[in-house]
Amino acid sequence: MKVLVLNSGSSSIKYQLFRSDDWVALASGQIGRIGEAEGDLKLVWIDADGNRQCSEDNRAIPAHQEGIDHIVDKLQEQGVLEDVSELSVIGHRVVHGGPHFKHPVVVDDEVEDEIRSVIPLAPLHNPGHLAGIEVARKHFPSVPSVVVFDTAFHQTMPPVAYRYAIPEYLYVEHRIRRYGFHGTSHQYVSKRAAAMLGKPLAECNLITLHLGNGASAAAIRNGQCVDTSMGLTPLEGLVMGTRSGDIDPAVLIYLWKNLDLNAAAVSHLLNRQSGLLGVCGVNDMREVTHQAADGNKRAQLAIDMTLHRLKKYIGAYYAELGEVDAVVFTGGIGENSVEIRHGACQGLKRLGIELDEAVNAERAPGERFISTSDSEVKLLVIPTNEELEIAQQALATVS
Amino acid sequence: MKVLVLNSGSSSIKYQLFRSDDWVALASGQIGRIGEAEGDLKLVWIDADGNRQCSEDNRAIPAHQEGIDHIVDKLQEQGVLEDVSELSVIGHRVVHGGPHFKHPVVVDDEVEDEIRSVIPLAPLHNPGHLAGIEVARKHFPSVPSVVVFDTAFHQTMPPVAYRYAIPEYLYVEHRIRRYGFHGTSHQYVSKRAAAMLGKPLAECNLITLHLGNGASAAAIRNGQCVDTSMGLTPLEGLVMGTRSGDIDPAVLIYLWKNLDLNAAAVSHLLNRQSGLLGVCGVNDMREVTHQAADGNKRAQLAIDMTLHRLKKYIGAYYAELGEVDAVVFTGGIGENSVEIRHGACQGLKRLGIELDEAVNAERAPGERFISTSDSEVKLLVIPTNEELEIAQQALATVS
Repeated sequence: MKVLVLNSGSSSIKYQLFRSDDWVALASGQIGRIGEAEGDLKLVWIDADGNRQCSEDNRAIPAHQEGIDHIVDKLQEQGVLEDVSELSVIGHRVVHGGPHFKHPVVVDDEVEDEIRSVIPLAPLHNPGHLAGIEVARKHFPSVPSVVVFDTAFHQTMPPVAYRYAIPEYLYVEHRIRRYGFHGTSHQYVSKRAAAMLGKPLAECNLITLHLGNGASAAAIRNGQCVDTSMGLTPLEGLVMGTRSGDIDPAVLIYLWKNLDLNAAAVSHLLNRQSGLLGVCGVNDMREVTHQAADGNKRAQLAIDMTLHRLKKYIGAYYAELGEVDAVVFTGGIGENSVEIRHGACQGLKRLGIELDEAVNAERAPGERFISTSDSEVKLLVIPTNEELEIAQQALATVS
Repeated sequence: MKVLVLNSGSSSIKYQLFRSDDWVALASGQIGRIGEAEGDLKLVWIDADGNRQCSEDNRAIPAHQEGIDHIVDKLQEQGVLEDVSELSVIGHRVVHGGPHFKHPVVVDDEVEDEIRSVIPLAPLHNPGHLAGIEVARKHFPSVPSVVVFDTAFHQTMPPVAYRYAIPEYLYVEHRIRRYGFHGTSHQYVSKRAAAMLGKPLAECNLITLHLGNGASAAAIRNGQCVDTSMGLTPLEGLVMGTRSGDIDPAVLIYLWKNLDLNAAAVSHLLNRQSGLLGVCGVNDMREVTHQAADGNKRAQLAIDMTLHRLKKYIGAYYAELGEVDAVVFTGGIGENSVEIRHGACQGLKRLGIELDEAVNAERAPGERFISTSDSEVKLLVIPTNEELEIAQQALATVS
């Protein structure tokens, strides 16, 4: 049997097809620019001989309905899906589950309504997810749809971590609290870390660092999330590609009063024009690293600020957890940036954190230890796989 | 000779008179409700026999000019100041020095202009300070006025700590950066901590916690501030009596868009209605502690959130510093709350932080160690004395 994973945005659908007996990814693709005159269509699949094939195409995909038609046609055309009856379940990524969803659930009308009610908390994401879910349910009436929330893994946080020190009615009436995101990734790497450490996850204290264009840290006690750096939205926390992360909230009031910006403009400024991009004009960490190596001081400052914030979170979560088994690096930057991993671990010997510089510098794929053999706290690199985690959680939910 | 310290607000003047040969505080007083039909006048002084005396009065003080007249009359009447010629210097507290002032300076017209130019960064404080400075300069033309800034001690922070990850022009053109406050207090307790540790301040790594109705933490490396929790304004950082401290900046955007609040309303909400007050309805930590002891769950949550944030900052600054000689508690709550000191140190044994519970529980005045004899990191309680620090810095500036 097979599992299809869909990640629907307002004008895009990313998808991946897994074979559930060995969890091989048979195909992964994406449709971009839905609703425009010309859409972007990409697919990578494993052919009958086990070779990796690739196709790209451009044609108009007027709406999500046609997108799903295209996906099914394409998967069948390439022979990775013979018939829709092969699908055990469709797993949908949903960014924001609000305070209600602590686990994946099979979608029904009530679940759709609940996801809809959270739109004010995730105006950029949940409408696109809903479009994909609605179409999938219509198109595959016999295949259950399961929603897997980016926020769900963080629902074990205690109130002390998820409440903000603001008037209580804003929490009670407006659901304003810390939710956290990248939960599927933090959960996936936590499980893998436990396996690497040879301990039950329920006995592991971890600090997981998902570092990509978006970035977040999580504190895991006995296998459960107890704190995370993203908050009501993915804006809070670490320095990111284009997001400011933590900042004096009074900065927004200052911009509002003195620069005459409205809410949308401030949101755009902090979400799209800040972070690495704001400090040095470039948002891709690889390029920032190159520029810094070439002596660009603004690029160096952007890296130093990223590391400074990262170390503060490592220290904060260390204090919160009391004892830490491992710090885990994942996400594009966490998996690939020798420099960021090096910088994040510098000067933390007193915390029992010692990087093996030689091992860290090896450009190896896959899961690996990068701490010295003496390091009390283990340092791990674990490539994340959110789609696989969604596929497995979706199947477990209907089994 | 004597030193007068003035802390002028928009409708108040607090003052203290020191004898500079032994730094005894001869008198301290305050004038409240300047400009209202009835002002509040208070003075505590040491009489000729060395006894503490107290007077209170209510009468109209139309403006700062009459306030200064009253102060001089009152000090002369009580015999603590015979003549203005006894004053070596007047030290003025100024909350915000902007990026310009790294040290105390003698006030001239240019300095006044510079303080005026920072008003957009400190609209609630600097205008009141300026009113006091102008009047003092007119009233005492022969006595130099020195301004001592709450921000100055933090001016040694490196860019990595004081820059926000927002577009560079906001820093360059609008001076939006972390400044930090309570600097005079952090500086004072740092010096006292070095003395208690028996080390030169320049060799001390400290985490100083100024915990009052406003609260901030600072990381001190080799005697110099390298990071602090308050930012552009005193809103960022720890959970405070009525201030939220750290929060997802997107919460402001949410309030703006969904609750239709304007900038002033959001500022009021986060500065005046949040913190302990927002979570449990009471802003005084003593009262919150009583209510929590009586089983009030909201009060307990407010305390737990305060401690959670505090521990995160201790951990963050620990990671930043690498090695820490001592953690210092000061301010009304830091000096007096057995519960808060206890809670802040819980579970930090791995960081070499061990509280002596019995010593911590003693209600002793004055400077003291509260760590166990084995504790690698020393824990200190140091009553702060910002007025004395201002007096000494002011005198040093003119000497």
